[in-house]
Amino acid sequence: MNRTRLDRLLGGIDTDGYLLDASQDDANQLYLSGFTGPDPFLTLYADGEVHVLVSGLEYGRARSEAAADTVERHADYDYEYGGREDRYDMYARFVREKGVESVSVPPRGPVGTADALRERGIEVEVDGEDVLGEVRAVKTDEEIEAIREAQRANEAAMRAAESLLVEAEIAGDGDADDTIEPETLLYRGEPLTSERVAEEIEVALLRRGCALDETIVAGGAQAADPHDRGSGPLRANEPIIVDVFPRSKATKYHADMTRTFCVGEPDPAAREWYDLTERALEAALEAVEPGATGEEVHAAACEVYEAAGEPTFRTDPETETGFIHSTGHGIGLDVHESPRLASGAGELEPGHVVTVEPGLYDPAVGGVRLEDLVVVTEDGHENLTEYPLEFVVD
Amino acid sequence: MNRTRLDRLLGGIDTDGYLLDASQDDANQLYLSGFTGPDPFLTLYADGEVHVLVSGLEYGRARSEAAADTVERHADYDYEYGGREDRYDMYARFVREKGVESVSVPPRGPVGTADALRERGIEVEVDGEDVLGEVRAVKTDEEIEAIREAQRANEAAMRAAESLLVEAEIAGDGDADDTIEPETLLYRGEPLTSERVAEEIEVALLRRGCALDETIVAGGAQAADPHDRGSGPLRANEPIIVDVFPRSKATKYHADMTRTFCVGEPDPAAREWYDLTERALEAALEAVEPGATGEEVHAAACEVYEAAGEPTFRTDPETETGFIHSTGHGIGLDVHESPRLASGAGELEPGHVVTVEPGLYDPAVGGVRLEDLVVVTEDGHENLTEYPLEFVVD
Repeated sequence: MNRTRLDRLLGGIDTDGYLLDASQDDANQLYLSGFTGPDPFLTLYADGEVHVLVSGLEYGRARSEAAADTVERHADYDYEYGGREDRYDMYARFVREKGVESVSVPPRGPVGTADALRERGIEVEVDGEDVLGEVRAVKTDEEIEAIREAQRANEAAMRAAESLLVEAEIAGDGDADDTIEPETLLYRGEPLTSERVAEEIEVALLRRGCALDETIVAGGAQAADPHDRGSGPLRANEPIIVDVFPRSKATKYHADMTRTFCVGEPDPAAREWYDLTERALEAALEAVEPGATGEEVHAAACEVYEAAGEPTFRTDPETETGFIHSTGHGIGLDVHESPRLASGAGELEPGHVVTVEPGLYDPAVGGVRLEDLVVVTEDGHENLTEYPLEFVVD
Repeated sequence: MNRTRLDRLLGGIDTDGYLLDASQDDANQLYLSGFTGPDPFLTLYADGEVHVLVSGLEYGRARSEAAADTVERHADYDYEYGGREDRYDMYARFVREKGVESVSVPPRGPVGTADALRERGIEVEVDGEDVLGEVRAVKTDEEIEAIREAQRANEAAMRAAESLLVEAEIAGDGDADDTIEPETLLYRGEPLTSERVAEEIEVALLRRGCALDETIVAGGAQAADPHDRGSGPLRANEPIIVDVFPRSKATKYHADMTRTFCVGEPDPAAREWYDLTERALEAALEAVEPGATGEEVHAAACEVYEAAGEPTFRTDPETETGFIHSTGHGIGLDVHESPRLASGAGELEPGHVVTVEPGLYDPAVGGVRLEDLVVVTEDGHENLTEYPLEFVVD
C-alpha cells in the first residue's frame, strides 16, 4: 500500500472518514484493510489511521494479517450474535468512537449500512470519484513484483494453450464423419474444443498458484465478439483468440495477456489484420510514458487502424466491426481498474500498470487481439510481458 | 427458478417493484435475471414480470440467455457512454416506464444507485428480510440435479485428496533431517503439504467442470480453527479436515462436503471425537424432515456432544472449544444461504438443500468435522452425498 498517496488522497475528502463495508472480494477493502476476510467487515480511514472491525471468528487472523493501525472485534462493542439493528448500533459506535460524524462511502457500498448510519445521525456521502481506486492505480514496487510474478504464471499457461494447438491435427475430408467437420482441429483423435484449451490453461495456472474465473479461447465468428468466452470445436485456418487474466492466490494481484493463433493457413484478410494489430500494439506501447494521456495511447492504436481504413469508435461511434473497444485498462487487485487507455482518459503516472490490447473484429473475418502488460516508469515504460508474437503455429 | 414462489413472495412486498443492480456475482441477480453478466446490470421485478437492462455489449447474450420477460439495452434509453448522472437518469426512466414509483432493494445493494433514484423521486426501501434469498432457498428439481452433479465432482475431488494421503509415507526418525520432522507425511519423498492436497482437489474439480475459490485441508492445531484453510506440511497420527465446496461452471450451483482423515494411529481422544461426530451427524440427519426446525436439527447434533460432556454454544455461549459453530446452512447459487440449521432457525420445507456438518475443535486435540449434503423431501430427506465415512486411511 502506498501510504503517502493514501493519506494525500483520502485526506482530501470532505467528510471525517472513509468507510468500507465489504469482504475481501472488494478490491478497495482488500487494499485498505490488508485483510482477506471472507465475510463483509468494516474498515474506517480517519485522521490518518486505518481501523478494522471484525467478528470474533476472524479476530486472530485479522490481527496478524491486516495492515490496519487498529483491529477491533464485535465483542469490544458487546455485540455477539444480535439482530440487524444491534449490528448497525455497533457500526455507529465504532465510527463515532473515532470522532467521526460523517463518512464517505463508495457508490457500490451497501445501502442497508448507509441508511442505518444515517438513521443514527451519521452523515453518509457517496464518493462518486472512487478515491480509493485512484490510490490503488499507482502501484508500489512490491505490487509491481506481484503482478510480474502472476504474469510469469500466465506465460506458462499460454504456452500450455499454444502446445495443444501445435500438437493438433487438422481433420481432412477423409477423417470427417457425421460428427467431425473438415478443418476441425483434432487433439489425440478428438475435436479440440475451446473448453479443453481453457481447462489446460487453468490447470497450468493452478500448478503455479494462480486461479481464474474465466478465460477466453474463441475462434471464428465467436472471436468477433470481444466478450465471447468461446465454446465448442476449434477450427484450422482461422484466428483463435486466447485471453488469460489470472490472479495470484497468494498476493491477489492479476496479470493479463492475449495472443491470437492460427493453425494452418490464415486467409489474407486475417493475415493483414494480424499485421495491423501488431503495428497498433507497437504504436500504442511506444506512446506509454508518464505525462502521456490514456487518450493519446488509445489514439496511437486507432491511428494505425484508421490509416488502413478500419473503423474505430473515433471514426464511427456506432460501428459494430473494426476496433470496437478501448486500448487498455489498469490492472491490480481488480482485473479492470484505473487508469483507462481510452477517449477522455487522463495522464499516466509512474507506477500505473496497464494492459495495451488493440484488436479488430468482424464476424466475416473473426477476431484478432494482441495484449501486453506494461508498467509506466519514470522515463517511459517497462513491458512485463515475455511471450513472442507469432500468428501461425504448427 | 420457482416462479410461483417468486410471484408469491415478491408479490407481498410493500413497494411497486424489486430492483437489483449487480453482476452475476450476486446470487439474487443470477437467479432473478438468469443472466451471467460480468458487469453490474439492472433487473426489476414488477407486476409479475422480470425486466433486465444491459449494455449494448451484453445485449445479444442477454437476449438469448436471460430468463427475464423483457430485455432492454442502454441504447433504448438513448444512453451510450455518458457520465454517471446520465446513467442514473436512464435507470430512473427504466424503472418509471414500468409504472414503478417505489422499489425494494437488498441491504447490500449499491448506495450510489439508491441515492440517485431517490434524488429522482423514486422511493427506495431496504428489504431487510432478503425476500429473494427466501425464494432461492426452496429448490426446483432442476436446481437439485445441478447440486447433485456438483456433488459428484466433489466426491471425485475428495477421492483425489484421499489418494494422496493413502499414498503418503510417514517420515521416521531415520528419515528426519534438519528440515523434515518425524511423523511428517511424505509424498514421493517430499513433505505432503495442505497446499499440495488442495491443488490436487482443484485440478480434479477443474477436470469435471467445477471451480472453487478456497478449500480447507487442515491438520493438527490448524484444524481446531474452523476458518483456517490449512498450510504447510501435514502430519501422521492426527486428524486432517478436508472441506471442499466447489461450484459448477455451467450451472453455477455449489456442492459441499467434509471428511476427516488420519494417516497412522489417531490418539484415543481423536478417535473418540470422530465416533461422537459420526453419531452427531447421524442424529442430525435423522432430524431433517419437512416441518422440523433448523433449531431442532441443530439440537439433535448438540445433544450427542453434550451427553458426552463436550461443550456447545447451548451449554456455554462463550466456549472456544467443543462444537463451536452451527450444524449447517442452505446451499445453492451461494455456498452459504438460507435456511440455517442453528439456534432460532425456522421450519424446513421440501426443496431446501442443506449441509449437515457437526464438528469438535480444541487446539490440544485438533479438529474433526463430517459434512453431508441433503435435500428435504416431502416425507424426510435424501442424502446427496455418496462418500464413505472412514477415519484412518492407509
